[in-house]
Amino acid sequence: MGEKRILCVGLVCLDIISVVERYPPEDSDSRCLSQRWQRGGNASNTCTVLALLGAPCAFMGSLAPGQAADFVRDDFQRYKVDLTHLVMHPACALPTSVVISNSTNGTRTILHAASNLPDVTAADFEHVNLSQYKWIHWEGRNASEQVKMLRRVEEHNRTCPASERVTTSVEVEKSRPELYQLFPYGDVVFVSKDVAKALGFFSAPEAVKGLRGRLKPGATLICAWAEAGADAMGPDGVLVHSDAFSPEKVVDTLGAGDTFNASVILALSRGRPLSAALAYGCQVAGRKCGVHGYAGIV
Amino acid sequence: MGEKRILCVGLVCLDIISVVERYPPEDSDSRCLSQRWQRGGNASNTCTVLALLGAPCAFMGSLAPGQAADFVRDDFQRYKVDLTHLVMHPACALPTSVVISNSTNGTRTILHAASNLPDVTAADFEHVNLSQYKWIHWEGRNASEQVKMLRRVEEHNRTCPASERVTTSVEVEKSRPELYQLFPYGDVVFVSKDVAKALGFFSAPEAVKGLRGRLKPGATLICAWAEAGADAMGPDGVLVHSDAFSPEKVVDTLGAGDTFNASVILALSRGRPLSAALAYGCQVAGRKCGVHGYAGIV
Repeated sequence: MGEKRILCVGLVCLDIISVVERYPPEDSDSRCLSQRWQRGGNASNTCTVLALLGAPCAFMGSLAPGQAADFVRDDFQRYKVDLTHLVMHPACALPTSVVISNSTNGTRTILHAASNLPDVTAADFEHVNLSQYKWIHWEGRNASEQVKMLRRVEEHNRTCPASERVTTSVEVEKSRPELYQLFPYGDVVFVSKDVAKALGFFSAPEAVKGLRGRLKPGATLICAWAEAGADAMGPDGVLVHSDAFSPEKVVDTLGAGDTFNASVILALSRGRPLSAALAYGCQVAGRKCGVHGYAGIV
Repeated sequence: MGEKRILCVGLVCLDIISVVERYPPEDSDSRCLSQRWQRGGNASNTCTVLALLGAPCAFMGSLAPGQAADFVRDDFQRYKVDLTHLVMHPACALPTSVVISNSTNGTRTILHAASNLPDVTAADFEHVNLSQYKWIHWEGRNASEQVKMLRRVEEHNRTCPASERVTTSVEVEKSRPELYQLFPYGDVVFVSKDVAKALGFFSAPEAVKGLRGRLKPGATLICAWAEAGADAMGPDGVLVHSDAFSPEKVVDTLGAGDTFNASVILALSRGRPLSAALAYGCQVAGRKCGVHGYAGIV
């Protein structure tokens, strides 16, 4: 039997990325430098990077019929991401995000669709055979349902043999207070710069020290802070830091955070120490910022 | 045998329309009010309106593989537009236009894709059995190729029985001088406000009078001018005018010009006088501006 899989639970959507030389003024009619369709959504991007780094992985999320969904499904399959746990919603539409990427100054303007696609529920998660996975990662979204899923894994871990235990991680990226109930779950918690700032912290080490009390005993808190690198604290209470590895020229930061998370999860899941995992995450995320899309990160 | 078809030659693309409450500032991350995918391209829109008005029609243009193309093909079929003359380009991608529609002030900001899809050529057009069509309309694009197609129809009309003659129309919408070589072809020429202004005219009647000399003898020139209605001059040299029929609230002007062209073509093809065709065009185009998309125009 090969390596057990990593499962990522969260959103998949279609990103339509238009690269422009300057941001279009309102009511103008202009041509972009290039345009590409890209599978998006945090959990979906994390799967892409895991797959590229050679880790068998699976995605769990909602899907709807239509051409946007056909595109993301084909793309998942190209990356050999397991789709057993896709939940179909025939009456909904997959959200499409419109991204205007300014190649002159690096800004990204994002227009999200107002989606009618519900998130996966704890009931959907009941169908997941936990013994197939060594790690399950949640992109914080419908937090109260996700707490139920995390509790199910905790229960499983209490009763199964040690070899069948599943490590859990949680990403708290958006500064919506509902998501903060996820902090006390997850063996590893990723907190974003945005959330840290919303909670009153001005740097990654401050955030890690200040928020660690919200975690369950023995858990690890990780906070990436763009060009300032990333900081983390594991069960031993030692603050660990990695500098950022900025590319010569930043061309595309879309999904850099998801790349960081995937790389850290992979390193930790293979037993690397926290400091090495953090440095690896910063390295791969830095490389990602220097290339368009993900294919160039390996 | 039923009514002969109207063939429209030009572009089909995918329009992804995001409706927003305010135009997004650069580098922001916001949610739109609604989003829809719509088949776009002038000739393609003209087919949609012809079909909705009950006229059998066909589309000739280039298509590429992929999900955007699947969407437009399905949509054409829903409107029962004949697709015999689609020209496939397996190595290309269908262009997607991103449209940001501001529902507060009605502006439309359009970002066209830089497409690698070539236009249909005179060689492609050789395969068209002209006797199947009563009217062929060209959206001015690759003008020197389109001139060859128009000449082929002229040649056909000179040699065939009167009952098999094909009426031709041409749209000169973009102010690219290359397109102006189309003026002396076409039994009916649609010139846009943009082109008229680029050529130094400040109103539709001025443009019609000033540009009529560029047409072949016996041809009709038509110029629509948004809220000012439309003017035209046929072979008799009489200037004809119709006021605009503005809806109570303008909600979506995307494709209003294509709607006008389709309605005028349909009326003329059924033998209506120029003045009646012009008024009908203004009426249907006005109705279109009051609804999202096209379904509500009938």
